[in-house]
Amino acid sequence: MMSEPIPLYLDCDTGVDDAVAIAYLLGSPSINLVGIGTVSGNTSAAQAARNTLDLLALAGRDDIPVAVGAHDHLTSAFGGGAAHVHGDNGIGGAVLPHADREPDARSAVELLIELSHRYAGRLHVLTIGPMTNIALALAADPTLPSRVAGVTSMGGAALVPGNIRPAAEANIFNDPEAAEALLSADWDVTLVPLDVTMEHTLAEADRDRLAAAPAPLAAAVGAMLDHYLDFYVPIYGTRTSALHDPLAAVLATGAITPDRAPRVPVRVDTTDGPGRGQTIADLRGQRIATRDHEGVRTRVVLEVAAPVAEHLMGVLLGEVPGPDAVG
Amino acid sequence: MMSEPIPLYLDCDTGVDDAVAIAYLLGSPSINLVGIGTVSGNTSAAQAARNTLDLLALAGRDDIPVAVGAHDHLTSAFGGGAAHVHGDNGIGGAVLPHADREPDARSAVELLIELSHRYAGRLHVLTIGPMTNIALALAADPTLPSRVAGVTSMGGAALVPGNIRPAAEANIFNDPEAAEALLSADWDVTLVPLDVTMEHTLAEADRDRLAAAPAPLAAAVGAMLDHYLDFYVPIYGTRTSALHDPLAAVLATGAITPDRAPRVPVRVDTTDGPGRGQTIADLRGQRIATRDHEGVRTRVVLEVAAPVAEHLMGVLLGEVPGPDAVG
Repeated sequence: MMSEPIPLYLDCDTGVDDAVAIAYLLGSPSINLVGIGTVSGNTSAAQAARNTLDLLALAGRDDIPVAVGAHDHLTSAFGGGAAHVHGDNGIGGAVLPHADREPDARSAVELLIELSHRYAGRLHVLTIGPMTNIALALAADPTLPSRVAGVTSMGGAALVPGNIRPAAEANIFNDPEAAEALLSADWDVTLVPLDVTMEHTLAEADRDRLAAAPAPLAAAVGAMLDHYLDFYVPIYGTRTSALHDPLAAVLATGAITPDRAPRVPVRVDTTDGPGRGQTIADLRGQRIATRDHEGVRTRVVLEVAAPVAEHLMGVLLGEVPGPDAVG
Repeated sequence: MMSEPIPLYLDCDTGVDDAVAIAYLLGSPSINLVGIGTVSGNTSAAQAARNTLDLLALAGRDDIPVAVGAHDHLTSAFGGGAAHVHGDNGIGGAVLPHADREPDARSAVELLIELSHRYAGRLHVLTIGPMTNIALALAADPTLPSRVAGVTSMGGAALVPGNIRPAAEANIFNDPEAAEALLSADWDVTLVPLDVTMEHTLAEADRDRLAAAPAPLAAAVGAMLDHYLDFYVPIYGTRTSALHDPLAAVLATGAITPDRAPRVPVRVDTTDGPGRGQTIADLRGQRIATRDHEGVRTRVVLEVAAPVAEHLMGVLLGEVPGPDAVG
């Protein structure tokens, strides 16, 4: 007796951890991945679309439209990506079979707006890259939020250091103006910051299991993670993968719910000062109890106690029922 | 066999917790309080000087010069203080015997510069208010840092929320430009942020012991704390006093040393954005071990494990040897 899968639009910059998130979403019974838009971030929007198409082909999911989105950000040109983290091709140098399919003729903004009409009131939006496409869609159609059931976004840092800058996380830093637009629109947002994404990890043994899996998608994800695990050695002290984008995906499906996620005002620093790209959440007065601010629709995830990696591995390895098992 | 007491210049905005810090410093055998400058913050610079003179008189320490410093901040006028925290007169509405003595004829800047010559190479500076006087002294005499052994400052918030703003602590927020000047000068700075000052507290029972103490200064401090404890009820859930300024004083005397205080770059947000007045410490890469950045002279105190309140109470109640017992 499972409920109808949630129609989900994914906005991504694929990216090693984006690839893990995509593989997870494809295996998750509780969502229906109805469209994917790409944006520049970990790699260019065009390369992200190529990587996404190739991943979907491995899973036999050529039915899901992939639309290229913004190459440049609202107030800055794309800076070239993060090859030291995600490899030259965005997916850790892994070579996937080249899918025949080309990106959708629509832009990511057109795809998102169209899906918001087709699934009006039910569509969920998951962003795991810079929020440029969402800001452009909000500008193109300010009624968009009225048709979206909720937004989940990987981004920001509340009470932990940033990654790309002392106080800023990369998705927000790459387009602070877009993040401010997403966070100030009138819809329910679940912000999944470094506070929780750094606390859930895959280990070398997990990667080995993925790389040895018979399913081509799981094996490809395992191959991609090789490079990514190296990047985290100075941070965790061992070959380890933070679960940035996968955690946002897991929370978007509802398979795991946060243990602490107060609804509090969040502002993005769009100045040119030392805090540019920072998310400033008002977390004062939360010491004795978690407290939601009246009328605020953004919740900031601060604690997820459930074993995220275990759940993620189960779905990636096909050990939980996939979409075909639903209904 | 104690070493020579450290000559210490205190810059304060007295203030209930400033008063606690002053009482502690007067009772601490390891420092010699050679001068006090006042600045607007918790209350006006003039009222802070009045409160300080009255406190010193209670302790029979009319020998310590008290100089009035900046009424206004570098780029903004004094905003009127924090009567809801510190009472209308800055010391929780407590009425002290009015000391005959008037403030020193010198300004706080003049006093600080003069002391830096008299105690060249040995003077320690402790700031527990906005850093306006220090910035003005640095502007008046850029050679000042060469004669100062070290600076300890209560201020900022590294990985915890601010108090006066979502990300900003009041001492820094009240004069961000001055804080940036202090933190970018070439001297050793120990920054004592809310991360640690909120974790050390006095309880109602501590206040009762102070209020009942035979020593007039301890009793006065106990009386002042009455109002202050109320302010913290919504924050801690009980009548409790955070030890903001007292903790900075305890660390300045060297009686207690921090357990974690990495030397890292700290920038102050001097923009007009949502992070104005924030201290942005680069605390990335500290997960597996505490790591000092090469060439950085500012350490940010993140952990103090010792029982600060117990030590503080001992000194305030005269249960440890006072300055007269030295030598």
